[in-house]
Amino acid sequence: MRDVAIIGVGLTKVDMHFDKSIRELFKEAVSKALDDAFNPDIESAYIGNMAADEFNNQKNISSLLIDFSGLNNIPSTRIETGESSGGSALIAGFNDVASGLHDFVLVGGVEKMSEVVSSEAESIMSLGMFHEYETIHGLSPEGAAALVMRLYMHRYNVKEEDIALLAQLDHKNAVNNPYAQLRFEVTVESIIKARPLADPITLMHCAPLGDGAAALILCPMDKAKKITDNPIQIAGVGQASDTLGLTQRDDLLDFKAIRLAADKAYKMAGIEAKDIQVAEIFDSYTIYGLIALEELGLANRGEAAAMLKNGYFSKDGVKPVNISGGLKARGHPIGATGVYQSAEIALMLRGDAQFKLDSTPEIGLAQTLSGAGVNSTVQILRRV
Amino acid sequence: MRDVAIIGVGLTKVDMHFDKSIRELFKEAVSKALDDAFNPDIESAYIGNMAADEFNNQKNISSLLIDFSGLNNIPSTRIETGESSGGSALIAGFNDVASGLHDFVLVGGVEKMSEVVSSEAESIMSLGMFHEYETIHGLSPEGAAALVMRLYMHRYNVKEEDIALLAQLDHKNAVNNPYAQLRFEVTVESIIKARPLADPITLMHCAPLGDGAAALILCPMDKAKKITDNPIQIAGVGQASDTLGLTQRDDLLDFKAIRLAADKAYKMAGIEAKDIQVAEIFDSYTIYGLIALEELGLANRGEAAAMLKNGYFSKDGVKPVNISGGLKARGHPIGATGVYQSAEIALMLRGDAQFKLDSTPEIGLAQTLSGAGVNSTVQILRRV
Repeated sequence: MRDVAIIGVGLTKVDMHFDKSIRELFKEAVSKALDDAFNPDIESAYIGNMAADEFNNQKNISSLLIDFSGLNNIPSTRIETGESSGGSALIAGFNDVASGLHDFVLVGGVEKMSEVVSSEAESIMSLGMFHEYETIHGLSPEGAAALVMRLYMHRYNVKEEDIALLAQLDHKNAVNNPYAQLRFEVTVESIIKARPLADPITLMHCAPLGDGAAALILCPMDKAKKITDNPIQIAGVGQASDTLGLTQRDDLLDFKAIRLAADKAYKMAGIEAKDIQVAEIFDSYTIYGLIALEELGLANRGEAAAMLKNGYFSKDGVKPVNISGGLKARGHPIGATGVYQSAEIALMLRGDAQFKLDSTPEIGLAQTLSGAGVNSTVQILRRV
Repeated sequence: MRDVAIIGVGLTKVDMHFDKSIRELFKEAVSKALDDAFNPDIESAYIGNMAADEFNNQKNISSLLIDFSGLNNIPSTRIETGESSGGSALIAGFNDVASGLHDFVLVGGVEKMSEVVSSEAESIMSLGMFHEYETIHGLSPEGAAALVMRLYMHRYNVKEEDIALLAQLDHKNAVNNPYAQLRFEVTVESIIKARPLADPITLMHCAPLGDGAAALILCPMDKAKKITDNPIQIAGVGQASDTLGLTQRDDLLDFKAIRLAADKAYKMAGIEAKDIQVAEIFDSYTIYGLIALEELGLANRGEAAAMLKNGYFSKDGVKPVNISGGLKARGHPIGATGVYQSAEIALMLRGDAQFKLDSTPEIGLAQTLSGAGVNSTVQILRRV
């Protein structure tokens, strides 16, 4: 297997981009990534996108996005695994380089949600749930998260305000991220007293709706070293799935897909959880973020909230998490989110000014999730 | 790059399966493929599907399909490139084995169209066209095919009844394929006098609506040889794209995506078009099948119809095409079609009783296409 490097990163600000089409947004990210990688000839592309079919009335969108970005005629494939689409696209792109089929590969992610009103966006997002057993009976994504959160609070004796600490941390970090959607701080009180969606989930426990595109340029490590001084290695990747329906799980709090994906990625990278120095985790709901920290081995079971409270995951803590602002405050342009996360970790490892830490980390992790633990990817990046 | 082999094939009959869900259909194909491959432990899956989002109200469907098939917790990714989704899934699966990330990989394709009435199916299929420039102005897939067919007839002085010969050949071949949807012969007259959809495209120039699932088991060639006596090598793969919108093409008859995909696949396999002994081509409309034969280098430009007429592509001809019955008569369960085609070529190379030729071929080709030349994949399989 060839070693694979990230040599280019392109991000757009997550926002409600009413003035831009999905094509324009995507092209902006691709242009930035190409510039960052010194404009190599791209041979192939994989694009994470959950729902352009509904948000933009467009299938077969990878051809359109690639063509509009000036990368005419190259192979381009849309990848969809719900909210984890961006992570799955990265793994498909990794394979394309690792196998030797292509040398310079674009991994993109894009979602343009602002084309529809928010109630319609909610219906579209619900398509990711189990239609026959859940959606038609009225279970919403927020409802599922509420079930999980309530059980977690009960089992581990954790309070709502402790779970809210992750949203607070996200908002605090987002202030310094120029690409973040919600760049302001919030209080724990404002989170738990926000508009209730499905008790105990309030609006402020959820990632916002937003538009965004992110792009990465991948190539073999030997070529990368000739192009750039700071190639970032994709040292480990892992993906795993679980039952789509919650009723078929043995334990609602067992997010096995994250754990299995992490195990694979750690093994491939030859590291353990303790070696991770920075992480971008997938907190589409604060509770899923806490569970992710635990399934990734970054916190003991039931203890993530306590560790948040003592500052362990803060920017100046032991293991900074969601420096970007996380899904809650960087934003969550669904199919793009996984690509944003890996792009942000790459920039942190490069010591980029916009994601600067006191001590530049050598190894970081990005994790995606679809639904309530349905599909998960874990990517481990390393500075070489 | 590791050599990749197909060691298992599973097909369901293409039909309007009103009595089966998409999950059941998929599981049937997977079970057959697993049995055929002596039940290895599958580590990863890629599933071609164009529109479960709309036909079945279900995104993130790969987790559901995999779980229901008993392959719990493995990574599973849905691939969507319009009608060519099955071909793109095969390439993603190929990369997953070739890179060394996984050894035993499932490539599946499925589409369950019979959940909606045919007018709604038409709308869903139209999502694959360029929404902003085509669909909202009323251009339908049939309309686009009619423009291409009319120009082809004019430029190459070819008659409608000559183009219809491909549909006639498909129907003749389908009689012997137990998995085909339309197992009856038709006359050229019945084709050109069928209900007009967009003149000169009649109902009988089009592939029918239908449900189907197909599955392949891939693994490294060295492992394949220990498992089976008849591994089929994936000797070459290629994919290429073109503008989504027809107005942006220099020439409406130039299906560059097919040509570029074929060039890559031939080069990778170390062969030329003349070496191909059997082919499954993508005739979602008869005219696209003729153009494919020409872009693949199996016929000279403008001469495919004449070669059909003299029997060159017939089952007992020089280069048998669409032994399966092609999209017109085997059927076209969209995202599954590309997987059906490669499965059928693999069975022909294995000398399987159901796809038996007088002389068992050594090398065959399968080709997919989305829209009017938007995205294309070419797979070259070889008996080893």
